Amino acid sequence: MKKACILLAEGFEEVEAVTPIDYLRRAGIEVTVLGLGGRTISGSHSITIVADAALGEIAAATTYDAVIVPGGMPGAAHLAESRDVVALIRRHFAAGHIIAGICAAPAVVLHGACGIMEGKRFTGFPGTEGKVKGGLPVDEKVVVDGNLITSKGAGTAGEFAVAIIGALTDGEMAETIAERVLLRL
Amino acid sequence: MKKACILLAEGFEEVEAVTPIDYLRRAGIEVTVLGLGGRTISGSHSITIVADAALGEIAAATTYDAVIVPGGMPGAAHLAESRDVVALIRRHFAAGHIIAGICAAPAVVLHGACGIMEGKRFTGFPGTEGKVKGGLPVDEKVVVDGNLITSKGAGTAGEFAVAIIGALTDGEMAETIAERVLLRL
Repeated sequence: MKKACILLAEGFEEVEAVTPIDYLRRAGIEVTVLGLGGRTISGSHSITIVADAALGEIAAATTYDAVIVPGGMPGAAHLAESRDVVALIRRHFAAGHIIAGICAAPAVVLHGACGIMEGKRFTGFPGTEGKVKGGLPVDEKVVVDGNLITSKGAGTAGEFAVAIIGALTDGEMAETIAERVLLRL
Repeated sequence: MKKACILLAEGFEEVEAVTPIDYLRRAGIEVTVLGLGGRTISGSHSITIVADAALGEIAAATTYDAVIVPGGMPGAAHLAESRDVVALIRRHFAAGHIIAGICAAPAVVLHGACGIMEGKRFTGFPGTEGKVKGGLPVDEKVVVDGNLITSKGAGTAGEFAVAIIGALTDGEMAETIAERVLLRL
């Protein structure tokens, strides 16, 4: 079974986090929700989610097939400030595992804190692309470049999740989930 | 300020619940998340949300401008079995306040438990429409008939939320939110 984790910090964007967790689990992918600084984390619209574990609780060498980074402020800024988050993302990126960021996450976390966007085709929340020096912005809902998957924001979170499912399993599973959740009516 | 509540029971569909809470709050609507049987409720994909209050904690006469009912099983079945939920929905429906149900909720809760769908244009999760005897199924993402708003499922939760915003505020606010969350790219 493929394994993914998603990183939540205070002020994460709730739709951008919940949609991939929900849809990936529908696809049989094991998703671990990791909270920065604790297990109970409130989003940028005051929705409180109980994480499966605090980031500090997992073993340092724990490896996932995908690391998912939601946007939302100040959630993305908090993730960017965490050495543990940056180390986790860089380690997985270097090993060729999937790194998936949406909304503010590509610019603030993946570029600003992790420096992994150089020469990469990507998208993000409109207006944030200019901050990604050396990146190659593309105006699409979801952009896949090698092991990097990026997306624009809450309204594209469904397609973002489907793209991650496709990368972790196969296109048929991705299409099955897209159909089952009525994403493309 | 307009006030809405959303009813969560164990096994609710997470995207169908979180999307309206998130988008309505973006529109300045006060949303109270009510948990059936407690404040900590897990969804049908094992995402745990901390409600603002347990349903039993609110005063019996508390009134909202809208009552929102997510789908997901067994979440919708649990809501249907609750006398408090049925009384809350019937009281608000009779007073002309907005009742909004998505996925399994129109058939299982609004029809099966509350009996408020007679002669109403509605939609729901594909295959559930036939259970709504006396209702008038319409094959659209979201259907508004008077104070009843219904929608198909997780993938249409964004448009469902925007329709509720439109009914509680105005079309301009609904369009503003739809644009801000990048719903219709």
